[in-house]
Amino acid sequence: MKRPKSRVTSFDVAALARVSQSAVSRAFTPGSSIAEETKSKVIEAARKLNYVPNFIASSLTTKRSNIIALILGNLANPFYVHVLDAFSRRLQEQGRQVLTFTVEPGAESDDAIMRVLRYQVDGVILTAAQLSTRMIGICHDRGIPIVLFNRYIPGSDASGVRCDNSAGGRLMAEAFLRAGAKSFAMITGDPRGTTSQDRVRGFVERLLEAGVRRGDIEEASGHSSYDGGVEAALRLFGDGSKPRPDALFGINDIMAMGAMDVLRHRLGLRIPEDMMLAGFDGIPEAGRLPYQLTSVSQPIDLMVDETLAILHLDEPPRPIERGIDRPICGSLIWRATIPGPRVLE
Amino acid sequence: MKRPKSRVTSFDVAALARVSQSAVSRAFTPGSSIAEETKSKVIEAARKLNYVPNFIASSLTTKRSNIIALILGNLANPFYVHVLDAFSRRLQEQGRQVLTFTVEPGAESDDAIMRVLRYQVDGVILTAAQLSTRMIGICHDRGIPIVLFNRYIPGSDASGVRCDNSAGGRLMAEAFLRAGAKSFAMITGDPRGTTSQDRVRGFVERLLEAGVRRGDIEEASGHSSYDGGVEAALRLFGDGSKPRPDALFGINDIMAMGAMDVLRHRLGLRIPEDMMLAGFDGIPEAGRLPYQLTSVSQPIDLMVDETLAILHLDEPPRPIERGIDRPICGSLIWRATIPGPRVLE
Repeated sequence: MKRPKSRVTSFDVAALARVSQSAVSRAFTPGSSIAEETKSKVIEAARKLNYVPNFIASSLTTKRSNIIALILGNLANPFYVHVLDAFSRRLQEQGRQVLTFTVEPGAESDDAIMRVLRYQVDGVILTAAQLSTRMIGICHDRGIPIVLFNRYIPGSDASGVRCDNSAGGRLMAEAFLRAGAKSFAMITGDPRGTTSQDRVRGFVERLLEAGVRRGDIEEASGHSSYDGGVEAALRLFGDGSKPRPDALFGINDIMAMGAMDVLRHRLGLRIPEDMMLAGFDGIPEAGRLPYQLTSVSQPIDLMVDETLAILHLDEPPRPIERGIDRPICGSLIWRATIPGPRVLE
Repeated sequence: MKRPKSRVTSFDVAALARVSQSAVSRAFTPGSSIAEETKSKVIEAARKLNYVPNFIASSLTTKRSNIIALILGNLANPFYVHVLDAFSRRLQEQGRQVLTFTVEPGAESDDAIMRVLRYQVDGVILTAAQLSTRMIGICHDRGIPIVLFNRYIPGSDASGVRCDNSAGGRLMAEAFLRAGAKSFAMITGDPRGTTSQDRVRGFVERLLEAGVRRGDIEEASGHSSYDGGVEAALRLFGDGSKPRPDALFGINDIMAMGAMDVLRHRLGLRIPEDMMLAGFDGIPEAGRLPYQLTSVSQPIDLMVDETLAILHLDEPPRPIERGIDRPICGSLIWRATIPGPRVLE
């Protein structure tokens, strides 16, 4: 076995590139100011010498590790795979990397945050539904910026970026009503998550305004996964004991896709002729040929940009921005699962 | 704005728990030996004090950061989402985390590895097709274990874990032949990746043995994504100028799913009556009701275990294990897209 070679240092690179050592440091620091020509010289010298800066060692003095923690609750929902992909690419362009943490549906949220704190991360992006307000306090006390993605915590001063889920739910109720639907069912997600709560609230509010009674809106939880959507649809409609509603709202696309497959392939229903259907999120998977699901799209790229802006990664440490909660409007994607005119006034 | 509070140290935790400081350290070190009762005392004291060990600071002395780099080429293929999920969960159980790196299809592989080396990772798991042998040398020289997942580099001494892709390709050819197929087409993946090459080789070899001529096997590349599978199927069959083959082999499930949707919903074909179809990987998505795709399953959990075993994360630094390449057998999952008897001799 070869012994590890003695490592090349930034001094060696500076000497070969004929620049200062500080220039070498700046060439490898995301967001720092350096002339393009100087940077090229450094990169070329570093390549020749196989030099790689050690972000971990330098983080002890700079207090920047260039690592961002992304806490994921549910990769069974492709929406979060697209979110991971978008954050990964955007942060990599900036010279940063994503440290992923997955939280099991039933897991203690405090444990997840404690695990995150072991790694001196520059910021935390939280997409999981479970998180205690206490833990946000701990992050804030330690000066670690944290942004809630696609959720918020009522009464907390944590900043968040999300789609206006309640408005999206209203939009979908409106679309069903215009298409002539009179009876309704919902497949809901995690009841502890504001995302599911808000979509349900907006949807139901609009239906109540139209004279539908709350008790007449059937619902089942689908745990925000394809299989959960399948099971919820079977619980709702599998035994055929009750009259089928005109319209079904899956509060996210992946559950609506599971429900759709059951309605067609198990229960022999036509969509939208026998039942209208809609989802939420606008994931590309729901636009595939067998689905063509009408949905509300979440603008992931915009939401990612907003999240990174709140983290202020390129600036010197500064007071954490608290209490930011700017809901971004989603837009209706008309596809094939709601019939009729495709305009809402 | 509150100033960050002065941080609690391991001394404070040791004092409260009435244990030695070394016990506190061991309680937070994955794989270290400590009595369950002592560990509980430490964890309880740490909770009370909001103490969190800093893996990054301690990594400078222990040379362990508890960070494993996972280099992903393609999240557009759900197989790799399942791989990420499996590594994340398994490593988290051990007290470690995954630092994800995504490599764009056309990107320089050296850049990716140089980015990885900036973070003092304990090991590298590489799932992307692109990687130069030179970079494996650099990892080895620095004492960083690297394992290729689901691929290998011919002529290199890098260790890898993979499914026996060539045997799987043969298995699928055999299944088509037994079902009476006489003419064949393939949708291939990244031509630089050994995974696609080996599946194609095994498939074609078996067909040649059965008297099929190589020139009669149509093929198109589908870039290992759903959309790529859609486009490849349209290129192969869209204009109807050539006679359709009896059987189509998508060398991974996600491309086979794209092709299947085009064959049915654009070209009006019945599967398997008008064309048989098969994929590879055994992703759960391909077993959903509209697809019911016959496939070869890759045993992800077993492959993840093997990969972690080669990395030797729980042991003191040791010579890197080189040249390990143990292909694991995949198994045929019979579903609805190949007709006939479901046994191969």
